[in-house]
Amino acid sequence: MAPTAARPRKGEITRLRILERAAPVFNQRGYAGASMAEIVEATGLEKGGIYNHFGSKDDLARESFSFAISRIVDAFAEAQAGVEGLDRLTRIVSVFGDWADAPLIPGGCPIMNTAIESDDTHPALARQARAAMESWHRLIGAIVKEAKQRGEIVASVDPYEVATVVTATLEGSLMLAKLFRDPGQMHRAVRHVTEYVDSLRKGE
Amino acid sequence: MAPTAARPRKGEITRLRILERAAPVFNQRGYAGASMAEIVEATGLEKGGIYNHFGSKDDLARESFSFAISRIVDAFAEAQAGVEGLDRLTRIVSVFGDWADAPLIPGGCPIMNTAIESDDTHPALARQARAAMESWHRLIGAIVKEAKQRGEIVASVDPYEVATVVTATLEGSLMLAKLFRDPGQMHRAVRHVTEYVDSLRKGE
Repeated sequence: MAPTAARPRKGEITRLRILERAAPVFNQRGYAGASMAEIVEATGLEKGGIYNHFGSKDDLARESFSFAISRIVDAFAEAQAGVEGLDRLTRIVSVFGDWADAPLIPGGCPIMNTAIESDDTHPALARQARAAMESWHRLIGAIVKEAKQRGEIVASVDPYEVATVVTATLEGSLMLAKLFRDPGQMHRAVRHVTEYVDSLRKGE
Repeated sequence: MAPTAARPRKGEITRLRILERAAPVFNQRGYAGASMAEIVEATGLEKGGIYNHFGSKDDLARESFSFAISRIVDAFAEAQAGVEGLDRLTRIVSVFGDWADAPLIPGGCPIMNTAIESDDTHPALARQARAAMESWHRLIGAIVKEAKQRGEIVASVDPYEVATVVTATLEGSLMLAKLFRDPGQMHRAVRHVTEYVDSLRKGE
């Protein structure tokens, strides 16, 4: 029975390897732009081998998106380790700001890429992008709440405004940095966002 | 000779009509996502009729992008009429901020959409997006320069930083507004950017 019992584990490893290699393809080329031929090339598997693990290109696209997001969630969780309150946000901004130099996933932010591509065309992917962005906004909201409880910022600070300004500026600057192949676009935005976050602190 | 002489004008009208109707299709569905069948449907012409005016889908995509940009350039030129210096930037920010409620072209900002889709995949479209974004950055740079000459802002203000912060925040918030179908995302960003632009003014 041993080989039978071992099989699912090997299958799990192959599945993960497919996701690891397909996620950058979808992120760089887009859902509509990525061809199965490119995914075959990136994974080094036959088409049939991929379809053993994922029912369709659509399935694979959605699972690849979730995989990419889990990588980013891990990186942001790690960034906040050992700090509290508003410093958590400063750390996240700083990790996000490294993207133009050392991307967490090649091809830019998968939430923004998927949002731009799918908002008018692919409701299932758009829903996934929306859920990922909502969870990111909730994280920022929770940090603002904690910072208020710790008395770091005044009660009137609007968590929605903080989430919008931080997210919009970082995402927009990542798009500019990639378009111009100039990380300076992102560095300037990170400087601005960091100053903005600091400006929320109560005057001493 | 009259019918022959009139023909080019009619051709020009048809060409413009194709661009007017194809531009939103490319902007909403993306270059890879837009099919000729959708363009045929949007224009109400046969495929052959479209190919009479544009050699290929690629040609049509690039011309549609230019057409969309010209619409935006016109809107921003109009927005600045009758004002000078930093007020020009405030006006532009305000017009951009209407996008979530009343889009200049359906489907979001064509520069951002094209940048996100083509940066890793389609060099010719990426070049066009880059050129359009450079011209937008030059406009902001020229306004900052004029505002300095008029003594509205201090000489140390960095036009590149203004261009990055304004553009990134507006573009990012338009992406969020579309993703969440919530114009409030854009309104909050516009408020922040307007305050930022005002903060550049010399204290009276």
